[in-house]
Amino acid sequence: MVQIIKAHSPNGRWPSRQDRKRLEILEAASQIFRDRGFERTTTRDIANALGLTPGSLYYYFKDKQEIIFFCQETALRRLLTAGRRIGRMPLDPAQKLYLLIAEQVRCMLEDLFGSLAHVELDGLAKRRRSRIVARRHQYELIVRQIIRQGMRRRVFTAGDVRMRTLAILGAVNWTARWYTPDGPAGPAEIGRCFAAYLVSGLMRRSVRARFPRFPIAREMNG
Amino acid sequence: MVQIIKAHSPNGRWPSRQDRKRLEILEAASQIFRDRGFERTTTRDIANALGLTPGSLYYYFKDKQEIIFFCQETALRRLLTAGRRIGRMPLDPAQKLYLLIAEQVRCMLEDLFGSLAHVELDGLAKRRRSRIVARRHQYELIVRQIIRQGMRRRVFTAGDVRMRTLAILGAVNWTARWYTPDGPAGPAEIGRCFAAYLVSGLMRRSVRARFPRFPIAREMNG
Repeated sequence: MVQIIKAHSPNGRWPSRQDRKRLEILEAASQIFRDRGFERTTTRDIANALGLTPGSLYYYFKDKQEIIFFCQETALRRLLTAGRRIGRMPLDPAQKLYLLIAEQVRCMLEDLFGSLAHVELDGLAKRRRSRIVARRHQYELIVRQIIRQGMRRRVFTAGDVRMRTLAILGAVNWTARWYTPDGPAGPAEIGRCFAAYLVSGLMRRSVRARFPRFPIAREMNG
Repeated sequence: MVQIIKAHSPNGRWPSRQDRKRLEILEAASQIFRDRGFERTTTRDIANALGLTPGSLYYYFKDKQEIIFFCQETALRRLLTAGRRIGRMPLDPAQKLYLLIAEQVRCMLEDLFGSLAHVELDGLAKRRRSRIVARRHQYELIVRQIIRQGMRRRVFTAGDVRMRTLAILGAVNWTARWYTPDGPAGPAEIGRCFAAYLVSGLMRRSVRARFPRFPIAREMNG
């Protein structure tokens, strides 16, 4: 984590205590955005929750948009790292996609930074916005690549790769809108459920029998 | 349409010219929200686009939240009407669900009012918010009912009805975030593509062969 944040620090200028503080603020802010809704949360709310004055919060983050940027950046880096790792695994495309979906849902619901993935980027400065959009696009390409691979290997039925990718990402991104920690299912269970359903819709009838349950492969935890 | 708006008019107090004007404003506002993003659009932008002064816009809608409420209310009424009609059709649950998904996507992308379905309701007054949430829930129940019916009739595989409903609604609601009218696929095509994929993932292997394409039933256009 600290490494991820450090990557934004020009020439590693921030001392490690400041890094930790920024992370702590991000965690608290994400929690408040989730509880109260992004639009209704003010920087004052975030400062209050952390026992900081608005002035000291400003020292770490200039505004809500800056918090959003760091949250998205952190979540997307994690997703991209997981996505690339899964993409390289010596697995069937159906299993790769299963792992990718399950991991993305888990990351979005368990890891607080993921909870803001659905927030519109309209308020961000152009340069930051482009950076987030570019990373989102990179992630989308990983999903598309796995689906295309599955079609080539005749594991998945032929069809529009982009549409299917967008359907999957929509279902997954939307979880941050309805999930509550006190609901009947936890992040891992929701992830497995979504992965099984969304992969199943892609599979050729003849192949489907080979993957009755899509168990999460041990590789993910190893 | 006019009837839908009239339903909000206490005792039919508004003359029909005002109804038409409110509708016209809704259409223009939806278009601007879609082009510019909801957060960045001001009531002044909406007034400008319509050649109105902010004062005359205020006569019809007091603020952006009031516009959001009417947009959502109108879109949800349309979806509920279509949903109930499809629910009553003498069709297989797989065909019903196919029609429902295709129709919802089309409504969200073609019909401008649907474009705001993903907007957070945090800013709405409590009473209005509850009303929208209740209607969304009613719609969710229609989807769940069809899925449950499919499971009972052993057309769909057994599984968590709520999770699958949420996956479907997420994929569909998210379309409003990425769709652009100048993209490669139109609303009807996206609707059919999503419907085929999302229904396919529910179907039992043995049944799947019976529905190779899920053509849009003639009933929808009749």
